Amino acid sequence: MSSAPVVRKASGPDELVISHDPNHPANLICELCKLFYDQNWVTGTGGGMSIREGDNIYLAPSGVQKERMSPENMFVMSLKTGQYIKTPDIYKPSACTPLFLASYTKRNAGACIHTHSQAAVMVSLLYDKEFKISNVEQIKAIPRVTEAGYLENFETMTIPIIENVPHEEDLTPSLEQALIDYPTTSAIIVRRHGIYVWGENVWKAKIINEAIDYLLELAVKMRSFGIPTDAGLGSERVAPAHELH
Amino acid sequence: MSSAPVVRKASGPDELVISHDPNHPANLICELCKLFYDQNWVTGTGGGMSIREGDNIYLAPSGVQKERMSPENMFVMSLKTGQYIKTPDIYKPSACTPLFLASYTKRNAGACIHTHSQAAVMVSLLYDKEFKISNVEQIKAIPRVTEAGYLENFETMTIPIIENVPHEEDLTPSLEQALIDYPTTSAIIVRRHGIYVWGENVWKAKIINEAIDYLLELAVKMRSFGIPTDAGLGSERVAPAHELH
Amino acid sequence: MSSAPVVRKASGPDELVISHDPNHPANLICELCKLFYDQNWVTGTGGGMSIREGDNIYLAPSGVQKERMSPENMFVMSLKTGQYIKTPDIYKPSACTPLFLASYTKRNAGACIHTHSQAAVMVSLLYDKEFKISNVEQIKAIPRVTEAGYLENFETMTIPIIENVPHEEDLTPSLEQALIDYPTTSAIIVRRHGIYVWGENVWKAKIINEAIDYLLELAVKMRSFGIPTDAGLGSERVAPAHELH
Amino acid sequence: MSSAPVVRKASGPDELVISHDPNHPANLICELCKLFYDQNWVTGTGGGMSIREGDNIYLAPSGVQKERMSPENMFVMSLKTGQYIKTPDIYKPSACTPLFLASYTKRNAGACIHTHSQAAVMVSLLYDKEFKISNVEQIKAIPRVTEAGYLENFETMTIPIIENVPHEEDLTPSLEQALIDYPTTSAIIVRRHGIYVWGENVWKAKIINEAIDYLLELAVKMRSFGIPTDAGLGSERVAPAHELH
Repeated sequence: MSSAPVVRKASGPDELVISHDPNHPANLICELCKLFYDQNWVTGTGGGMSIREGDNIYLAPSGVQKERMSPENMFVMSLKTGQYIKTPDIYKPSACTPLFLASYTKRNAGACIHTHSQAAVMVSLLYDKEFKISNVEQIKAIPRVTEAGYLENFETMTIPIIENVPHEEDLTPSLEQALIDYPTTSAIIVRRHGIYVWGENVWKAKIINEAIDYLLELAVKMRSFGIPTDAGLGSERVAPAHELH
Repeated sequence: MSSAPVVRKASGPDELVISHDPNHPANLICELCKLFYDQNWVTGTGGGMSIREGDNIYLAPSGVQKERMSPENMFVMSLKTGQYIKTPDIYKPSACTPLFLASYTKRNAGACIHTHSQAAVMVSLLYDKEFKISNVEQIKAIPRVTEAGYLENFETMTIPIIENVPHEEDLTPSLEQALIDYPTTSAIIVRRHGIYVWGENVWKAKIINEAIDYLLELAVKMRSFGIPTDAGLGSERVAPAHELH
Repeated sequence: MSSAPVVRKASGPDELVISHDPNHPANLICELCKLFYDQNWVTGTGGGMSIREGDNIYLAPSGVQKERMSPENMFVMSLKTGQYIKTPDIYKPSACTPLFLASYTKRNAGACIHTHSQAAVMVSLLYDKEFKISNVEQIKAIPRVTEAGYLENFETMTIPIIENVPHEEDLTPSLEQALIDYPTTSAIIVRRHGIYVWGENVWKAKIINEAIDYLLELAVKMRSFGIPTDAGLGSERVAPAHELH
Repeated sequence: MSSAPVVRKASGPDELVISHDPNHPANLICELCKLFYDQNWVTGTGGGMSIREGDNIYLAPSGVQKERMSPENMFVMSLKTGQYIKTPDIYKPSACTPLFLASYTKRNAGACIHTHSQAAVMVSLLYDKEFKISNVEQIKAIPRVTEAGYLENFETMTIPIIENVPHEEDLTPSLEQALIDYPTTSAIIVRRHGIYVWGENVWKAKIINEAIDYLLELAVKMRSFGIPTDAGLGSERVAPAHELH
């Protein structure tokens, strides 16, 4: 596959982003963003991703094709100082950066994924302040966060929905407020925009993002049949879709 | 592709799971779960798979990314003794294990597939105790089970729907009861959860799972147009979707 | 990728099916059926394909995974004699064979594709004796058949829908009758079953199949909004979906 | 993958289309059209693409499988003279050529993409003279065109919809008129046909096409729930889909 124009000049040591280890954060961001592109989550340069390794925050740049990045395109920031310790020359930092940082500083996350998932956008149009879904097996992939372990399938997963703003970095206050108001959530939906999902490491973040998107997609299908997503077992029995039975 | 962290210590002989033969059960589970992931059936660590070869039961572990497993991640259990004869060190056995075992002991299956197929979940919300579909060609891929051969396309395929429970292993009694109540079924749908499908060998199980999921997906589409799935030939003529004709 | 069990004994000369040329019919059937599998057209061993090269008819076998065939699995029949000149040992000829032959003998086709496309099945449930669609650009990919050239985008593509039967080979009389009744069609839909599409060579057949399936899929979407597919330009203006405008 | 028959004779120097550089226009057209095929945008030989490099216009030929082209299949035209300086022997120039040229001469584009996207066709059936969508984050990927920078997410993206005609080249006058009437648009939808999208270079054109198709697909989903796409923030609150809340 051909790729976007390569970086011609950069500051910071190359060894921060160049590695033969496929599990190096710079390599994983490239690999996983390609996967997310294939799932229609980050097309048209939308979305982004960040991984933390110790004090180093790896960040995909702004406005690039997420499926065609290479490791040398990555920004690296020190979490302690908030300064970039490696910047590619021709790219700009992502406007998502303060939102990714919030997941690190407020939740001690190890990775944060931001997608423009159409299921997330549809859910933000079909629900008011919160997305709730209950009694689906996939809910068991969602961690409790404030205590060890995962949700039960008969419990309710709640994700807050915050309003979009003109400039992505200005989402930070309301995202941080939602982190306080919903201490057990692993994600925040931004209305008419997409979703932020994080986890204690990159694989947990990926798994939680997949599980939540599965539930969002299922919720849209349920609503298309008039079935509520959080009304308890048996609630589907009285929904219009059952008039055939 | 990069992969999940490798197993550092394991008990049991490596030769049970390491083979150059692509048709070795440990290799097939990895290959087919990757395929199922691409079909949105086992995302977010959901679902699983097991293959029986003689007395040896190969099982994917619990809570791992199903598209990123390697053969050394597999559990091997003796069907005769019920003891693990090979366990990867850092993984836990799947909670699906007793359900997979039921397909081996009650149906003499050669392989069992468990997915979180959204079509299965939607069908479990649109139907009550049984999913029925008639008069579709793809039904011919479904074996009769209690006698040789396959269903005719004009016959009805019935799959029981059992209720979900908080802990997957506790599904075993109702799944085993359904195996008794529905001696000809090759699958069981678990409401708001997914589906279990088995076959006399791994390829038959894969084929039956594909054919059933095709029928589940078609059923959801039919219901979205108000067309019943088991009401006989010509029943679609009176459905609301036909008001245009 | 691992594959189905290999053929152990076969009759007929190997050179009929073994070739390094990727455009050899036995190789193309394997390649294209893999592509059709990825498009959800031939899952669960459904569907099939045949190519004619001179007097030789190449046919995929019955009941095999269409995405995992190898050239040595193919049947080769002489069109002149109707006898197999190469048979794989462990497979059975496809029940589609007489239907493929009809496209060769009645239409002088060079290849014939049979899929279980869900769009075709849905259209067979939403339309009565004929599927008609007008005024869509993709119609221009459909040949006129009885004269040179292709349909205009403002013309109507009509595909007959015949009733399914218990045994696929028994479709032959009604399929042959439809070939007489609809001399300009390049396809026949079988209700609750799928579609047969042919063309003067393998690439034309593939292109026509893709164009028709695009139109079938579009038709189902149009009907979901209450928009008729053959009611003339501007007819969508009065459909219920427009109440928002 | 096997390919379409190779060109046997051609006029013009080979070096215009043969290059080891993956970013050479002839290579990029082949690579990107394969990608568009996988997204169901150019199946059945539909759609096409052109790239301008200096005075040279690279064009995919007419009526070929867009996912199976090779660089030597490309036409090259001089923008200055309007003459072909490289023609493959067995192919015909695309009927889209004058439309691609309009993007070069009227908008100084660097590349133009034409797809038969089903989302574009559906939108052309659900909207009258213009497609409008507001208040979605992905709108930020759309350039302002008549001034520097991109749309805000709270602004409205408007794409004109022109009527289809029997012969594609005859779309040129109304497409050129739409370019005058809508000086800020980066795309034109052709009713019951597809969409033309351009950008200042090939990557910008690809990104804009992806972002617009995302918005078209989202719009169809919104309309399926009765949610208008351009009625302002909060308008979804009063839509029928919300009767559950």
